[in-house]
Amino acid sequence: MSLVAFCSDFGLSDPFVAEVKLALRRHGPADLRVLDITHEIAPGAVAAGRWVCARIWPQLPAGAVLLAVVDPGVGSERPAVAAAAGGRFFVGPGNGLFTGLAAEPDLQVVRLVRREPPLAHLAGTTFDGRDLFAPAAARLAAGQPLRDLGTPASAAELGDAPPEAPCAVVWIDRFGNLITNLCRDSAAGRRLAAGATLMVAGRPVRGPIQAYADAAAGELVWYWGSGGTMEIARAGASAAAQLSARTGLVISLPVP
Amino acid sequence: MSLVAFCSDFGLSDPFVAEVKLALRRHGPADLRVLDITHEIAPGAVAAGRWVCARIWPQLPAGAVLLAVVDPGVGSERPAVAAAAGGRFFVGPGNGLFTGLAAEPDLQVVRLVRREPPLAHLAGTTFDGRDLFAPAAARLAAGQPLRDLGTPASAAELGDAPPEAPCAVVWIDRFGNLITNLCRDSAAGRRLAAGATLMVAGRPVRGPIQAYADAAAGELVWYWGSGGTMEIARAGASAAAQLSARTGLVISLPVP
Amino acid sequence: MSLVAFCSDFGLSDPFVAEVKLALRRHGPADLRVLDITHEIAPGAVAAGRWVCARIWPQLPAGAVLLAVVDPGVGSERPAVAAAAGGRFFVGPGNGLFTGLAAEPDLQVVRLVRREPPLAHLAGTTFDGRDLFAPAAARLAAGQPLRDLGTPASAAELGDAPPEAPCAVVWIDRFGNLITNLCRDSAAGRRLAAGATLMVAGRPVRGPIQAYADAAAGELVWYWGSGGTMEIARAGASAAAQLSARTGLVISLPVP
Repeated sequence: MSLVAFCSDFGLSDPFVAEVKLALRRHGPADLRVLDITHEIAPGAVAAGRWVCARIWPQLPAGAVLLAVVDPGVGSERPAVAAAAGGRFFVGPGNGLFTGLAAEPDLQVVRLVRREPPLAHLAGTTFDGRDLFAPAAARLAAGQPLRDLGTPASAAELGDAPPEAPCAVVWIDRFGNLITNLCRDSAAGRRLAAGATLMVAGRPVRGPIQAYADAAAGELVWYWGSGGTMEIARAGASAAAQLSARTGLVISLPVP
Repeated sequence: MSLVAFCSDFGLSDPFVAEVKLALRRHGPADLRVLDITHEIAPGAVAAGRWVCARIWPQLPAGAVLLAVVDPGVGSERPAVAAAAGGRFFVGPGNGLFTGLAAEPDLQVVRLVRREPPLAHLAGTTFDGRDLFAPAAARLAAGQPLRDLGTPASAAELGDAPPEAPCAVVWIDRFGNLITNLCRDSAAGRRLAAGATLMVAGRPVRGPIQAYADAAAGELVWYWGSGGTMEIARAGASAAAQLSARTGLVISLPVP
Repeated sequence: MSLVAFCSDFGLSDPFVAEVKLALRRHGPADLRVLDITHEIAPGAVAAGRWVCARIWPQLPAGAVLLAVVDPGVGSERPAVAAAAGGRFFVGPGNGLFTGLAAEPDLQVVRLVRREPPLAHLAGTTFDGRDLFAPAAARLAAGQPLRDLGTPASAAELGDAPPEAPCAVVWIDRFGNLITNLCRDSAAGRRLAAGATLMVAGRPVRGPIQAYADAAAGELVWYWGSGGTMEIARAGASAAAQLSARTGLVISLPVP
């Protein structure tokens, strides 16, 4: 069974997600299935899209295609790319969404060649998700080789990402938990693992706890989250609200 | 494989969309698939639903069923209809959602006959989406002929739509782009194609541009959108917010 | 075909729903299908989740699995359970979500045994939906017997639910309709069926009406809703807004 995992900043109010799925169906194998990752990435928020892609792709089965469309430069000269790494495929704009793949030893990248005439009566240059990326993702799902989709390219075509602080908030979830980029198995992560109280926005954050239930009501705590990185929560409430935290907040770590 | 494309004003918080899908499954073929178009049409907004239906149906594969439920008159004497046109099928209330089909040369319409006793313990008159339309859509997906679903009817049973201005905003998308009803291949559209600056809410809107990237930051521009009609955008921002625009806004075209 | 119906308080912005589905796929049969019921239950709102589960499970086909995750106590000592009743299966926390099953004569309950090592690099204690419940639901969907998933347990392991008033608002839908827990076929329901005007927040509510169309514009009315219980609506508007009603509102019934 072929799987296309699909994330975007299209939201769920417009018919755009469905139009991409219809294009996948039009160009893909009969048994193609689509898994929505999220379509609520803020409009044009490439950094948020990059985080979603980095979190989800290691959970995809071998052979799956990750179609990611957060594409404020649609119609410009930004490259359109497909890539293969770690047994999965990737399709989207080369604007930094897939920059995390650059470290993968088996990375292959092509620059997509625009082959499809868009739907006859719907010609346009603003919907590459439907008209360019979906046909490419569908072909990969059907087993067509990566090299047939375009011209060989380097990892640089995936685009750049700004440097990140060692411990910064990269996502705030529905529960108001702050998800950071600090990996449990990094050197800094291992130093923290024995226990440390962090100061965030002037308030102490105790950790690591093993489960939310180990926190007192209203207490701020940190723990190793379900993505393998450090998270900060407030028991039974929103840490983001209490700390007025936003994505990008840098958290100071104790001096080693 | 049988496809039912489903749009409604049910939203995604209540279990109603799932209940319709369970009814489709109960009455449909084993290989039935459902494609969500959108369920975030504003409650009772028939005109918005009509736009969604008109945009999506030409993108559906042959044999697909479009199930559309925006039905403020549920339980009243408004007809419940099924139709066939252009190789697709349509099921929903006859309240104007499908009025765009009236121009299709091969249009056939039936008035649905209520055959199903609703789920025994859930009898009601307020959920035709689940209790009347879904079973009919499932039967069409299973290959049952249109005529078997009800009594022959005329296009008038699809309901009326108020007349539209030649260029009016019919949808505002998540990015704040204004989608109009002005077709690229209409006489007025062809006149604009050479280039024209429109005045909208007292501000100039330049076009047609080929891609968002052709606009200066913050500039208002127009272009031929991914639905084949004219759209207005603000580069990197929301045109709707800047223009305080709402659906229904009429845009003046230059005198030919 | 195996069906897992999935409801949660995860929302649709985070990738969590997709991660659960990937876990279902990893541990489930090749033909597994997932039906989203709703993921917009308010964070930690167990009572709302209980209502969703009670409403949806009788509509599920025989053999389906209802996976429900509203789990503020994740990581604590609250039991994790699987159950079978009425030909369906149930998986989730034993915190009251499934308390409605206690009345089913053929109820069987097991306390889940944690068998899966979570994804190697994503170890954590905060995402039992992905790491514990989804694998269990997938195994049931694959036909594995309930008893193989854990240790036999009593209905008490499903958790408690606070007592409810005979007629209280248990859900407010997108249209602002108030859905109560008063069953049409209860003694009190049968007494009302001949017609009664209820007083709610100082305003008269007439019923039962047969369809919204039987109400005057703006009138407050009650009727037997699509879940088999009494509902209150305002014709063409939101009853919840007019009555400032919230979930939990108790409605007085006429003295018999």
